[in-house]
Amino acid sequence: MTAPATETGAPVFKRLALLGIGLIGSSVARAARKHGLVGEIVGHSRRQETRDEAMALGFLDRVEADPAAAVAGADIVMICAPMGAYEQLAKAIAPALAPGAVVTDVGSVKGMVAKTIAPYLPAGVHLVPGHPIAGTEHSGPSAGFAELFIDRWCVLTPEPGVAPEAVAKVEALWRGMGMMVERMTAEHHDRVLAITSHIPHLIAYTIVGTASDMEEATQAEVIRFSAGGFRDFTRIAGSDPVMWRDVFLTNKDAVLEVLQQFTEDLVRLQRAIRRGEGDTLQSWFTRTRAIRRGVVDAHQEEMEPEKAARLTKDED
Amino acid sequence: MTAPATETGAPVFKRLALLGIGLIGSSVARAARKHGLVGEIVGHSRRQETRDEAMALGFLDRVEADPAAAVAGADIVMICAPMGAYEQLAKAIAPALAPGAVVTDVGSVKGMVAKTIAPYLPAGVHLVPGHPIAGTEHSGPSAGFAELFIDRWCVLTPEPGVAPEAVAKVEALWRGMGMMVERMTAEHHDRVLAITSHIPHLIAYTIVGTASDMEEATQAEVIRFSAGGFRDFTRIAGSDPVMWRDVFLTNKDAVLEVLQQFTEDLVRLQRAIRRGEGDTLQSWFTRTRAIRRGVVDAHQEEMEPEKAARLTKDED
Repeated sequence: MTAPATETGAPVFKRLALLGIGLIGSSVARAARKHGLVGEIVGHSRRQETRDEAMALGFLDRVEADPAAAVAGADIVMICAPMGAYEQLAKAIAPALAPGAVVTDVGSVKGMVAKTIAPYLPAGVHLVPGHPIAGTEHSGPSAGFAELFIDRWCVLTPEPGVAPEAVAKVEALWRGMGMMVERMTAEHHDRVLAITSHIPHLIAYTIVGTASDMEEATQAEVIRFSAGGFRDFTRIAGSDPVMWRDVFLTNKDAVLEVLQQFTEDLVRLQRAIRRGEGDTLQSWFTRTRAIRRGVVDAHQEEMEPEKAARLTKDED
Repeated sequence: MTAPATETGAPVFKRLALLGIGLIGSSVARAARKHGLVGEIVGHSRRQETRDEAMALGFLDRVEADPAAAVAGADIVMICAPMGAYEQLAKAIAPALAPGAVVTDVGSVKGMVAKTIAPYLPAGVHLVPGHPIAGTEHSGPSAGFAELFIDRWCVLTPEPGVAPEAVAKVEALWRGMGMMVERMTAEHHDRVLAITSHIPHLIAYTIVGTASDMEEATQAEVIRFSAGGFRDFTRIAGSDPVMWRDVFLTNKDAVLEVLQQFTEDLVRLQRAIRRGEGDTLQSWFTRTRAIRRGVVDAHQEEMEPEKAARLTKDED
């Protein structure tokens, strides 16, 4: 499942600077070190507590309170912070970036990266935006682990004209951590992720909020009977609030467009329920099973039956 | 985690007739036998193939093509078939029911049970509607397993005036299979389950359908990048189409009412996105984390971190 650092066995980069050392940043550090993908790892967090925790956990060679100090001398800088912090970070690190360095990120929206970061970068620095589609509901340096990325997809969205060797090295880094890598335009990424990630999160957040306001059911009842499907929504709606605020603010257009389509479909099913049209419901529900089979066949789901048993409600 | 059959160690019922031997029915058979809760188990399915499969799997003492033959001489009859088949089954078994027998079921909507079944039952037969909130996305006799019910909740909704000893015995049966049991009115059950189960399923079915119609993303892309949240929706939307058609047809009023509340909340978040109101989004997303903690604390979620890692998208 894991790949060697490179075909020659040499590290892909000499020094990796991680701006943000939470779940994703700390997992990158652990995986890159485990597979010998980078020579040295320097971390940065704004918070003293996070810096102390990271050093105690031992996945960094060095930690810096100042992002400029963290990136000095690094040949790759990876931004693993909430997207709302990108512009401020770009401003702060720009003067300290080494000539020829690669700047990449792990954010869930890609169109905003070129707009937010590129204007600050000096000539000769290569911007390769990226999005590893992997995560958990947990946050912070202690939540990371080296296996997080194995068999998951990473999308890279370099602008035309970016040096091919810079893109190839970022790709080699993610592949070395076990990911499959695909390149596409930032615009296309943001539309696809709107449906596969952003709208599902928005809806999960909505319904968990709706449930907590219900007068018909106490909160204790909602929790007690959550095994009927609601539980899966609470897991999604337990994700980091700041990260997701930034996703919806930065991918507004694609999210609102997909939301419009979702709402139209929901109104169709609502009408079928109101009118008692069982055939319409059954044929819709049958069609969606095919997509589920596709997900399982593509190995994007790997649960044993006993685990899956706890996850959804189905009777026969 | 498991309990003895009864305090005296004797079976709770002499003969259990299961009308429907799919995921739930076959799990009941396996669990009831494992814990010595019933003396003999007779199954019924309309389909020859299912009857043959069940006998080959070995969890029944006997199988019958005729539901009346299955219930004859049984002191408990459990309906584990889609709710759309309830009325026909009630008609078919009524003349064959033993005096003093208990009739129960496992359907996801409870208000319809008294209306659909009670009119056909002879005097002296006790109706105790039930709903074990447990399941998987898989269907059929081979999908069942004895541990399905452990530490999950079962709701019983007997009408006032039903013999207390009949209700107590049904409760003992589910407790013996490892469930926690709560009693409430059918109307209350249907309102609570509308939010914790029915609306989550409706929304999951909707969004998976929306995704499969998208022009912006190919189906292959939707599947490939499903680890970003969509995957959890496909699992829910992979549930049995006939069962869920019947849920929405029989719990129409509560579902439409909760759907209205959900839609209002979704419109509020949609407006916040359109206007770029980050504070509104962040405070909503923070509030839903508390519910998630409640679910985890109530042990209605039992995933190791490595498994949970595969399930949602979160970055820090």
